[in-house]
Amino acid sequence: MRSFLHRGLLLAGLGLGTLTAQAQTVNKADSLNLRKIYDEALLRGQSYENLRQLTGTIGARLSGSPQAEQAVQWSKTTMEKLGLDRVYLQEVMVPHWVRGAKEKAEIRGDKGKGVEMNVCALGGSVGTNGKLKAQVVEVKSWAELAALPDDKVKGKFIFFNRPMNPTYIETGHAYGEAGDQRRNGAIEAAKRGAVGALVRSLTLAHDEFPHTGTMRYDEKVSKIPAAALSTNGADRLSQLLKADPGLNFELEMACQTLPEVKSYNVIGEIKGSKYPDEIIVVGGHLDSWDLGQGAHDDGTGCVQSIEALRLLKATGLKPERTVRAVMFMNEENGVRGGTKYAELAKTGGEKHLAAMESDGGGFTPRGFNIEAPAATVKKVQQWQPLFRPYGSSEFLAGHSGTDIEPLKDQAKALFGYDCDSQRYFDIHHTAADTFDKVNRRELELGGASMASLIYLLSKYGL
Amino acid sequence: MRSFLHRGLLLAGLGLGTLTAQAQTVNKADSLNLRKIYDEALLRGQSYENLRQLTGTIGARLSGSPQAEQAVQWSKTTMEKLGLDRVYLQEVMVPHWVRGAKEKAEIRGDKGKGVEMNVCALGGSVGTNGKLKAQVVEVKSWAELAALPDDKVKGKFIFFNRPMNPTYIETGHAYGEAGDQRRNGAIEAAKRGAVGALVRSLTLAHDEFPHTGTMRYDEKVSKIPAAALSTNGADRLSQLLKADPGLNFELEMACQTLPEVKSYNVIGEIKGSKYPDEIIVVGGHLDSWDLGQGAHDDGTGCVQSIEALRLLKATGLKPERTVRAVMFMNEENGVRGGTKYAELAKTGGEKHLAAMESDGGGFTPRGFNIEAPAATVKKVQQWQPLFRPYGSSEFLAGHSGTDIEPLKDQAKALFGYDCDSQRYFDIHHTAADTFDKVNRRELELGGASMASLIYLLSKYGL
Repeated sequence: MRSFLHRGLLLAGLGLGTLTAQAQTVNKADSLNLRKIYDEALLRGQSYENLRQLTGTIGARLSGSPQAEQAVQWSKTTMEKLGLDRVYLQEVMVPHWVRGAKEKAEIRGDKGKGVEMNVCALGGSVGTNGKLKAQVVEVKSWAELAALPDDKVKGKFIFFNRPMNPTYIETGHAYGEAGDQRRNGAIEAAKRGAVGALVRSLTLAHDEFPHTGTMRYDEKVSKIPAAALSTNGADRLSQLLKADPGLNFELEMACQTLPEVKSYNVIGEIKGSKYPDEIIVVGGHLDSWDLGQGAHDDGTGCVQSIEALRLLKATGLKPERTVRAVMFMNEENGVRGGTKYAELAKTGGEKHLAAMESDGGGFTPRGFNIEAPAATVKKVQQWQPLFRPYGSSEFLAGHSGTDIEPLKDQAKALFGYDCDSQRYFDIHHTAADTFDKVNRRELELGGASMASLIYLLSKYGL
Repeated sequence: MRSFLHRGLLLAGLGLGTLTAQAQTVNKADSLNLRKIYDEALLRGQSYENLRQLTGTIGARLSGSPQAEQAVQWSKTTMEKLGLDRVYLQEVMVPHWVRGAKEKAEIRGDKGKGVEMNVCALGGSVGTNGKLKAQVVEVKSWAELAALPDDKVKGKFIFFNRPMNPTYIETGHAYGEAGDQRRNGAIEAAKRGAVGALVRSLTLAHDEFPHTGTMRYDEKVSKIPAAALSTNGADRLSQLLKADPGLNFELEMACQTLPEVKSYNVIGEIKGSKYPDEIIVVGGHLDSWDLGQGAHDDGTGCVQSIEALRLLKATGLKPERTVRAVMFMNEENGVRGGTKYAELAKTGGEKHLAAMESDGGGFTPRGFNIEAPAATVKKVQQWQPLFRPYGSSEFLAGHSGTDIEPLKDQAKALFGYDCDSQRYFDIHHTAADTFDKVNRRELELGGASMASLIYLLSKYGL
């Protein structure tokens, strides 16, 4: 292996010269404080051990589940131990969907043994009420579905097999583009008389994991079951259909939606020393899908948000504005927590300066996506040179986070923590989203990046 | 999970405006060619499948081993299949060190059962000639060793236990700083009369893997065995020493150095269409340590170098200067291949424009480190905006690569491929450096970054 350059010692000459003289003074003082934050995170960071607890002793925590309730209590206790100024719960009713017994699927030709296939119900799907057996029609676009004659659709499974586009550099863009099949497939298939929807998993990996995720129904259209196939499984089914277009697919799923359940957002707060009424939120979502352990989605965002507050306390950088860590409940299938938080902020007359969310995994930081007026984006971009020594200076206009989106009309800016996206969809919403996929340094560096931006926001405002 | 911004569509407004009008024209045309290269890599990249073969069917390939010879043949065949203008071998004599039978170590107090400890011989170490049993003295610096009275060192193991510094952002810097213990520990300990050297593994991870790596002897000082302990093992030994400073360490290693062996650099070449006499080298090292599979170190660099040439051919971007992929032999314990290549280039009167090496793992690209006069660095930095859409635009002065270093006085610039460094030392030189640690997209993106810079170098020169 080669020798390496030390990025951390290169602050000088990294573009500080392009700022105004005043900004330079500000930045030279602040650069030492950012170094303090990163040092604390890399030497004594607690995100990783917190995540080990959350994923290892609680695990998956879908809204309404006993594990989600345990996660609420765990978050509350964990933040109380930090000696914050206030830790409290915010009540919110959440949907309660359950997967039920293990799902099964099999492909059956005219004769011979069936081929088993890994499947998982999409979140919110109705069950199959026993075995559902039907022929399969593959489509790769909405136009293909629309062009099918009624008799080709009626009584069939529609198999949505459009792959994610691998040429995008940010994998999230490919996810966004392909996600309509998962969200709307069951509605569009049912409108045409189909009995079920099979959806290619939203990932760029080629493997055997089916990826769950939320799907919708239209109350005016009959509700048909919807399941995800792994990408390899989808490729196999596609090949088998070419050889035998009349093959049957047998699907059995026992999922169902139960009555709503009372749950909570969990909030920890450090009061601002100078402007306590101006609030900065940093959060992740506490709920996760029921497969895996909800490690990268979004255990990492939760422990990083808690850590951001801990880093400010441990480094003695008392924020001038109030900083709140919020563990939002129910991002995955309802966004009830995010919606409730924004609603209570409004009715309570609270003043939100900014909100930040980490919900793209706990990988190496790259920067932040900013949702704000252009002038505000520009102001924040003045701080980029401070983040260059940490490889986390990509400050670009872009989407922030699902849970903080409802705060858009109340906050001056929303920030999405941006990290390396290459591995995220390999494990996203699968049984493979487990603690072992998280790297300690990558996770702790992320928390430090978030704490650093919060420190600057709390000091300078917007 | 949140939605994402699409980095790949953001070329406009990324700083092209700061270039001269002429450079702008150049860059607008070239941006389409870079997009072609990345598309080819992400849609049809072959690095990952090549690496699967190299690591899966050959595996570890230490210089002088039969596997290293197989890797030579594999590289030759693989490049011949690409239809390059020329594929050839370059003979070089290499050291042949072998680990021998499994190493063993045990910690023994006055009474009771011993504690077993994972160890591995450092590369080049002499064996223990049966069991070597001695007391242990822990030091964390050279000064501590120097301050020890002779009777505290004589007949003992010196245990070098200085950890890598976790506060550096680039892990390679911490590696560079702590590496002197591994390289020189046996010499300095032997000078004082010690019988062996035990060295804390060079990693920031806390685990049970001992990390091998090269060590040196001084012909004027007696050669004592040197072994690595895992970081957890080192911590345990340190604790046990506090409780019982008189404990004994038992080490058994059967490693030895055999006579030198004939081996080869493997070279594939595309002749330049306009300036065939100006050569650009892109390479990795074909040898690896004998633990693991040599996946990230440096199978990835080899397959990326081959891929860089394939990408140029597949996209029809005929290089105007000659481009050579070089699989260097013996980087790990001798740099004989790199030295021989530079020697033959000089005696052959070849003209090298530039050389590039990928030897920091196959993780997500960040940019390139450049070894060149300031004016050349500046010239290359003009191309940064072209790499921004791919997150690979950090072009900084810095060390390039061990195998191309001997070309320094012949080439106008040396480039080190720079990728995310956080996970590299977790697996570096261990049994865990295996194919499963490599992510397909991260690897292919790296090959595309390398091919892109080579394309620009081949077109514009330096």
